[in-house]
Amino acid sequence: MAAEIAEQPTRWRTLLGEGRAPIAEVAVRIRARRPRFVQFVARGTSGHAALYAKYLVEIIHQIPAGLAAPSTMTVYGARPDLRDVLFIAVSQSGGSPDLVQSVDVARAQGALTVAVTNNDISPLSDAAELHVDVLAGPEKSVAATKSYTAELLALYLLVTRIVEADDSAAAHLPDLADELLDAGGQVRSVAQRYRFAQRLITTGRGYSYPTAREAALKLMETSYLSAQAFSGADLLHGPLATVDPQVPVLAVVPAGVGGDAMRPVLDRLAERDADVFGVGSPALIAALTGGIALPGGVPDALSPLLEIIPLQQLALHLAIARGGDPDTPRGLAKVTETL
Amino acid sequence: MAAEIAEQPTRWRTLLGEGRAPIAEVAVRIRARRPRFVQFVARGTSGHAALYAKYLVEIIHQIPAGLAAPSTMTVYGARPDLRDVLFIAVSQSGGSPDLVQSVDVARAQGALTVAVTNNDISPLSDAAELHVDVLAGPEKSVAATKSYTAELLALYLLVTRIVEADDSAAAHLPDLADELLDAGGQVRSVAQRYRFAQRLITTGRGYSYPTAREAALKLMETSYLSAQAFSGADLLHGPLATVDPQVPVLAVVPAGVGGDAMRPVLDRLAERDADVFGVGSPALIAALTGGIALPGGVPDALSPLLEIIPLQQLALHLAIARGGDPDTPRGLAKVTETL
Repeated sequence: MAAEIAEQPTRWRTLLGEGRAPIAEVAVRIRARRPRFVQFVARGTSGHAALYAKYLVEIIHQIPAGLAAPSTMTVYGARPDLRDVLFIAVSQSGGSPDLVQSVDVARAQGALTVAVTNNDISPLSDAAELHVDVLAGPEKSVAATKSYTAELLALYLLVTRIVEADDSAAAHLPDLADELLDAGGQVRSVAQRYRFAQRLITTGRGYSYPTAREAALKLMETSYLSAQAFSGADLLHGPLATVDPQVPVLAVVPAGVGGDAMRPVLDRLAERDADVFGVGSPALIAALTGGIALPGGVPDALSPLLEIIPLQQLALHLAIARGGDPDTPRGLAKVTETL
Repeated sequence: MAAEIAEQPTRWRTLLGEGRAPIAEVAVRIRARRPRFVQFVARGTSGHAALYAKYLVEIIHQIPAGLAAPSTMTVYGARPDLRDVLFIAVSQSGGSPDLVQSVDVARAQGALTVAVTNNDISPLSDAAELHVDVLAGPEKSVAATKSYTAELLALYLLVTRIVEADDSAAAHLPDLADELLDAGGQVRSVAQRYRFAQRLITTGRGYSYPTAREAALKLMETSYLSAQAFSGADLLHGPLATVDPQVPVLAVVPAGVGGDAMRPVLDRLAERDADVFGVGSPALIAALTGGIALPGGVPDALSPLLEIIPLQQLALHLAIARGGDPDTPRGLAKVTETL
């Protein structure tokens, strides 16, 4: 897991280099079909990449997007009218039978289908009309890390290419990630603070909400604590009642409008004397219990690639501090098969 | 909260009586516009009703549906192309500024907008072109109960009316709910089992996934425990690692294909020696630690109205057993305002 976390900038460089042309080709095919609605289908970590891409589509492509529940087709037999729909399945392995079946149904129902996988050849890429390989290389750790950020970057490049938007800011990401990784020693001591925590809340808004979700999943997978993720807005609708000084909060508060939208949430958490650790802009984390500063000058849409890195490191170090083995969490297999 | 839980069958009778004609009128207006996609916007408990309705739309209306994040419009300023989109905002109070603003934007962008509220007049119903009143009567308890099931039933009647599907099974629901409420004494003793639990997992698939989400929220709001909800399929993608015999699981396993799809999930939980309490079909709960049986003969799509009742009662009794006041949870207000 440590090696795969450290590998991320290198994998992004590959995607930004040789990965660009094949993604641009897929983008051209999609643009030609003029989709009017996007549906994503994915689970687990890839589900968080899909959630990120849903924000990209709604904000950059400016068409509505949704996350499809495979069960509507696989369990309840729904056969929806999917003409003009772009149906994107995201999966590290491309092997989950329910995703393959939902792509089969979507294609038969008129959707343009795309598989985004970390596998050159898989049942999912065979089922879909178009395929994007995220080029993260073989991932051995059960807790996905490099395949997650490679999915984020591939989806960013795909969506910006579809509408021919400027994607030049992505070029700086690998160097910024290297800096962040180099400063990763501090995360080891942060992990000690959570050594005996049984419960934890993660929160973020907009583009950073998927980061909060993915951080919670990593902590659950490797350290077995009850990590709950809420969008900042949803946290105020009920779950805030569970917050007291004994329940640590990890807040993702990048520079930009997404982090600014977290200010009222941070205020409400402060009223409850919550212990809030931030990952984000120095200005926002200054008022919190502690925090890890992210490099500045990154657009909102690309911030999630950097935000997750210290949180992956936190999951790794916390697992080790607790005497666990982050590479082989109890009860899990690398490829999860659901029907 | 106890009174509002008990009131539910009466409120459903009102909706099935005088509520039908206004819903049918809204359905006719929607059908005339031939929407091709549906987007829901909602938060908290109403977000779970919207999630339920997303399944209804995909399975019964057979068009794609998604849950919109208000932040794309309110924080990031997205102005998506929403022609042919049916945009449905669900809110008990109809007062949350971010929902009102997203309806304003959706309407300006070409969507047909509908407000589903428990208020005759509200900023949300003023903003939307069409309005459905769920007729649950004034709700005083911070933890929403009767407004939730009234939203479910109103959305069921609306979606079935749009496609002129048979909705006659709904007529039996109030009597079945009365039976279930009468048998509610057993829930009080079930609550004792969770008196000292700090963490808990809820799970369900398809139509019952919103039930798992709503049950978790009620337990968080009233009893302050870390209740995490997962779709049965997503539970296997990572969070299963957190399950051990010390973390109780509440599984929603109704009769029908939704409950059947939970069998592999229950098998995996059994492998981990999990303590699983079920709400659902007698056949499925027989193999678990314990369970509450639901009445038979209810279609998959209507089962969520009954499933949530014993779980609302559990949240109530657990709060009381813990010395809390379920009517006024700490840190929360009845109407949550997010921007």
